[in-house]
Amino acid sequence: MSDRIVRVAINGYGVIGKRIADAVIVQSDMELVGIADIVTDWRIKVAVEKGFDIYGATSISMKDMRAAEIPVTGDLGDLLSKVDVVVDATPKKIAPANYERYKAAGVKAIFQGGEKHSLTGHSFVAQANYASALGREVTRVVSCNTTSIVRTLGALKNADLLKKARGVLVRRATDPWESDHSGVMNTVVPEKDIPSHQGPDAQTVDPDLDVITVAVKAAHTTSHLHSWSVELKRPANKEEILAAFRAAPRIAFLRTSDGVVALNSTLEMMADLGRPRGDMWEVALWEDSLTVVGAELFYNYQVYNQAIVVPEIIDAIRALTGIEKNGSASIEKTDAALGLVREFLTLKPELEK
Amino acid sequence: MSDRIVRVAINGYGVIGKRIADAVIVQSDMELVGIADIVTDWRIKVAVEKGFDIYGATSISMKDMRAAEIPVTGDLGDLLSKVDVVVDATPKKIAPANYERYKAAGVKAIFQGGEKHSLTGHSFVAQANYASALGREVTRVVSCNTTSIVRTLGALKNADLLKKARGVLVRRATDPWESDHSGVMNTVVPEKDIPSHQGPDAQTVDPDLDVITVAVKAAHTTSHLHSWSVELKRPANKEEILAAFRAAPRIAFLRTSDGVVALNSTLEMMADLGRPRGDMWEVALWEDSLTVVGAELFYNYQVYNQAIVVPEIIDAIRALTGIEKNGSASIEKTDAALGLVREFLTLKPELEK
Amino acid sequence: MSDRIVRVAINGYGVIGKRIADAVIVQSDMELVGIADIVTDWRIKVAVEKGFDIYGATSISMKDMRAAEIPVTGDLGDLLSKVDVVVDATPKKIAPANYERYKAAGVKAIFQGGEKHSLTGHSFVAQANYASALGREVTRVVSCNTTSIVRTLGALKNADLLKKARGVLVRRATDPWESDHSGVMNTVVPEKDIPSHQGPDAQTVDPDLDVITVAVKAAHTTSHLHSWSVELKRPANKEEILAAFRAAPRIAFLRTSDGVVALNSTLEMMADLGRPRGDMWEVALWEDSLTVVGAELFYNYQVYNQAIVVPEIIDAIRALTGIEKNGSASIEKTDAALGLVREFLTLKPELEK
Amino acid sequence: MSDRIVRVAINGYGVIGKRIADAVIVQSDMELVGIADIVTDWRIKVAVEKGFDIYGATSISMKDMRAAEIPVTGDLGDLLSKVDVVVDATPKKIAPANYERYKAAGVKAIFQGGEKHSLTGHSFVAQANYASALGREVTRVVSCNTTSIVRTLGALKNADLLKKARGVLVRRATDPWESDHSGVMNTVVPEKDIPSHQGPDAQTVDPDLDVITVAVKAAHTTSHLHSWSVELKRPANKEEILAAFRAAPRIAFLRTSDGVVALNSTLEMMADLGRPRGDMWEVALWEDSLTVVGAELFYNYQVYNQAIVVPEIIDAIRALTGIEKNGSASIEKTDAALGLVREFLTLKPELEK
Repeated sequence: MSDRIVRVAINGYGVIGKRIADAVIVQSDMELVGIADIVTDWRIKVAVEKGFDIYGATSISMKDMRAAEIPVTGDLGDLLSKVDVVVDATPKKIAPANYERYKAAGVKAIFQGGEKHSLTGHSFVAQANYASALGREVTRVVSCNTTSIVRTLGALKNADLLKKARGVLVRRATDPWESDHSGVMNTVVPEKDIPSHQGPDAQTVDPDLDVITVAVKAAHTTSHLHSWSVELKRPANKEEILAAFRAAPRIAFLRTSDGVVALNSTLEMMADLGRPRGDMWEVALWEDSLTVVGAELFYNYQVYNQAIVVPEIIDAIRALTGIEKNGSASIEKTDAALGLVREFLTLKPELEK
Repeated sequence: MSDRIVRVAINGYGVIGKRIADAVIVQSDMELVGIADIVTDWRIKVAVEKGFDIYGATSISMKDMRAAEIPVTGDLGDLLSKVDVVVDATPKKIAPANYERYKAAGVKAIFQGGEKHSLTGHSFVAQANYASALGREVTRVVSCNTTSIVRTLGALKNADLLKKARGVLVRRATDPWESDHSGVMNTVVPEKDIPSHQGPDAQTVDPDLDVITVAVKAAHTTSHLHSWSVELKRPANKEEILAAFRAAPRIAFLRTSDGVVALNSTLEMMADLGRPRGDMWEVALWEDSLTVVGAELFYNYQVYNQAIVVPEIIDAIRALTGIEKNGSASIEKTDAALGLVREFLTLKPELEK
Repeated sequence: MSDRIVRVAINGYGVIGKRIADAVIVQSDMELVGIADIVTDWRIKVAVEKGFDIYGATSISMKDMRAAEIPVTGDLGDLLSKVDVVVDATPKKIAPANYERYKAAGVKAIFQGGEKHSLTGHSFVAQANYASALGREVTRVVSCNTTSIVRTLGALKNADLLKKARGVLVRRATDPWESDHSGVMNTVVPEKDIPSHQGPDAQTVDPDLDVITVAVKAAHTTSHLHSWSVELKRPANKEEILAAFRAAPRIAFLRTSDGVVALNSTLEMMADLGRPRGDMWEVALWEDSLTVVGAELFYNYQVYNQAIVVPEIIDAIRALTGIEKNGSASIEKTDAALGLVREFLTLKPELEK
Repeated sequence: MSDRIVRVAINGYGVIGKRIADAVIVQSDMELVGIADIVTDWRIKVAVEKGFDIYGATSISMKDMRAAEIPVTGDLGDLLSKVDVVVDATPKKIAPANYERYKAAGVKAIFQGGEKHSLTGHSFVAQANYASALGREVTRVVSCNTTSIVRTLGALKNADLLKKARGVLVRRATDPWESDHSGVMNTVVPEKDIPSHQGPDAQTVDPDLDVITVAVKAAHTTSHLHSWSVELKRPANKEEILAAFRAAPRIAFLRTSDGVVALNSTLEMMADLGRPRGDMWEVALWEDSLTVVGAELFYNYQVYNQAIVVPEIIDAIRALTGIEKNGSASIEKTDAALGLVREFLTLKPELEK
């Protein structure tokens, strides 16, 4: 381990960007130099209240911000000149142009799952391929759904249990902050194309996974729910399966026997546990609903889309900059700093057999 | 075919009962003698407006109705004395006690899918087992979801394509009429138990089906969506699969290429087509999203829970009373009277290959 | 009354346009010559199924329709050459350009409430100002909310009871057909500006109304709810108020004592009553909740935004073309043809005093 | 000011109870002795994780908890023997029986707004009537909606501006934690009775307020929205009105010009500001939408029902126990400890005049 401090910029202070900011400042080996954005409303004003240094993502937005009396330190160029790595959390499709700027500035870059694998040539989930990202100039942290797939199917694969997996993703329609102008109402919207893109996307991280998904959008804002049907290499019992999941990081367990029965009760529990913004970084898997029938496995889990990739991004910072060579060590560091757990409740009930 | 007119009673004028009433009166071989219920509010007042004969389901409710100035012809006993068959559409758990009354009155009875198979010893889906219901005293028309499963998997089985089927059911949380006091909000609620009951329930109609389901409740009132992953007996192409579905009745097709992309657009189309209450009695299967990968088949369909069992109940009336010995003939008669179709739109686009 | 048949075109076959089509064809003094639109999906395909003559609203859309194998009779110009009046039900902001075409074709025109009063110089609600529209070249039927305001406040004014009215409008967020890609979720969105535009808009029909409104958008698709606080010219009792409302057309009554307690139960009742698409053309006012406190009056009503303007448009056709000189006669004719009522349920309970 | 530490019990660890617990432990003059409840699921397990002492609200629930391996210190009687004051946050209708126990134990008691005024003979809002609660044995902190009414109308009254106020309350249907089994869907439910109870309820705190309200329940879980129409004693300008509101505590300001345009954006901002559970204790009033027309005033505000009464309860503890004789001092102490503000954003834009 090095005692070097990595200097980090965040470009885009939205749902993901603001969480990365909060995550970076609690890492002992990182420094948040500043955040860049183009907005001038409450979203960036809160960042000012929190004491972050603000940069205009463009020279126009720098002027707009100043006109709105937002204290601005400089523009994106100024910010890039001060950092080792930039996390790009801008909306889809802006990234490719940004990437040229980052390269020109000699700054390593991390993109989000909304971008194509081909942009970066490397897609990242810490527990799957940290090593291959070491020292790279750029990577892409895959989307919330894909991250959850790699974590869980990776766990089954590591236990030599996984044959193939078929999943149905019941997606949230929009995020709460923008639900006043975006969303679906009183309907379910299946994606036109089957399979949906998450299977191939997971294969950009681990090409060995035999995974096909179908996605539908439902009328809620409170995170995604996945329902999986998995063929195992051999008949197994429930304990083996749970042991495989427990051996992997960033999967934690919900229990209907605890009264945690739906997306909303999980989130209320996260808020009650004092988590910042009620965030849940773990894949939250219903332990007592999980069922094995012969060599078939069925389970549901919850993916809190607003935060699940945050620890991956922190690890990606360490991997690209090489400040930590060991993936497991980085994961442990990240998880301790953020407060990830393996059990949400330490008072675990005896489960019915 | 006989020219006998079957005299029908309906006990329970709710979501299903009121639709059965409307369906019975358009059958040339049936007569709706009356409906029994216990409520005194707008629900039964509309039945009065429509000219149906009203009976109190109990002597107390008969008095309540009279106190509310609702014209009442008699009580359930009076009604039963005038009919050949009663359709029980009362809420769950009331049926067993009712059944004793029906038997005592010598009236054949049809129960709903909310009741147990053991109550009736026979579970009914017209295209699967009409013949075995002929002349019986009682049957149970299985639930909306189970009906859809038997129709679709039965179609694949009839084409000798079905090996096993795994489905995820995204259920509506409550029906529109009661959504002012019942429902879920901004969440998804997975059923605690995996598998859910629909698989075994389908096997009460066809024990050969290898089917396992997982069910979740989502935040909408507009019918159910099923997403299926099916293993075929052999690799097949999309045309074969569609041909198998087209060979079965009561499955019709939606196309995203027509702009029918979600539960709500389907229902708007039903209303536009002038259907009573916007009802859809068919399983509505998305034709262009249906995908075959080797010997695996994936598709989504919509189950309009408020109406899909109505044609089955009409057929069950014919089967129990023996007024029509041939299942296909009954299905044809029912579907013509109600207006079921095999294609919602006759202007069918050329689909992309 | 003349025995002339008015030839009608509809430009725009959306939520309003398709209902106007259905309304025109049931009027004995009107003929629906054709409908123009630009879409090629299920929306227009249903119109084909119903046997309407289809025109491309532009020459490009005519070609697109033909490419989609939709039988097209011609373009908008062809349609206009065959009619006396066109109802423009196109989206907002397209109307001004259309108006030039209608004028050039010498066709009278009716626009929707989304357009400005200044476009037409006349705004229409049948019971308020039919006479002033007689023989005009153009009018604008005001929006659903404004129509309801003019109907109800006009009724109080006619009874010389109205001093001033302050209303809060709880609007539906989007219409069901487009709720798969539009809407708000789990929030309430107040309009930024107070007062909202409906007060001044009502004054374009009746400048004497002292009315101020505040509007919020809530998380439902099932029509608008208005809550009114009215200062009367003098203390009055509930019977006087109800008599004033009953003396006006197109207001009908809901009662919580009938179990009609929310937007959804009203709509279920409309569907049960067999109305096409479950439409409600009347302002539906809760009779038993209406309360008078001294010279203050409070009441809630429901505005079914998809249909409430339809009878007004039918009347506007008669007014512009002069086929019926008397407003009351036109209203009576329209309401009989469509099936409007003054009481939804004829079995009216004795209300508590 | 005394340096005495008040010992506090909380009976009922639900939406309100858990927030009171968190609020008590950050007060320098209070000690949370323990919490009592009857549940054995995640809700109470989180309290264990947080280190609170748990008591069974009944001897049966104490046993149930022990059976569930929840560490229990004793029952409610044990808890009451150790405290000066108990905050009763149990569900409606349980309070009267509890009150007998509290009296018998010689413990002062605070009830919630769900209970009747007659139970306690005193209803409390700190800024209105702290003094009258000093040394009393019992009080009732009025409901979230009533609290907001007393705060805002009290502010106008204090500035000698208020003549009468008429409000429409657009209520949230249920709280998020229970939205998996409770709620309304895609509808608006007006309360049957007009006026709703909040007006008279506000008068239990301040009989001088001339206030009438109408309440409707809408299809969201994210707090209440109030829309007010106020007659002033005289014409006033917007600055006077805002000054009146600013002179009162626990009212803070939202601005659409900051992009805070709906219930959801406010709540996202609260979470971003790092508030525990995203709580908002202030009445959040839209400053730039507020409009004065002559002597009439119109404004909207948001009431975060889950937390708004929490600071009032803290003050009520001080008032009953007499640990602080001065209401303003208590309010200041409470607000500093919890983090209430008068402006959510210190970067306030120049508002349009």
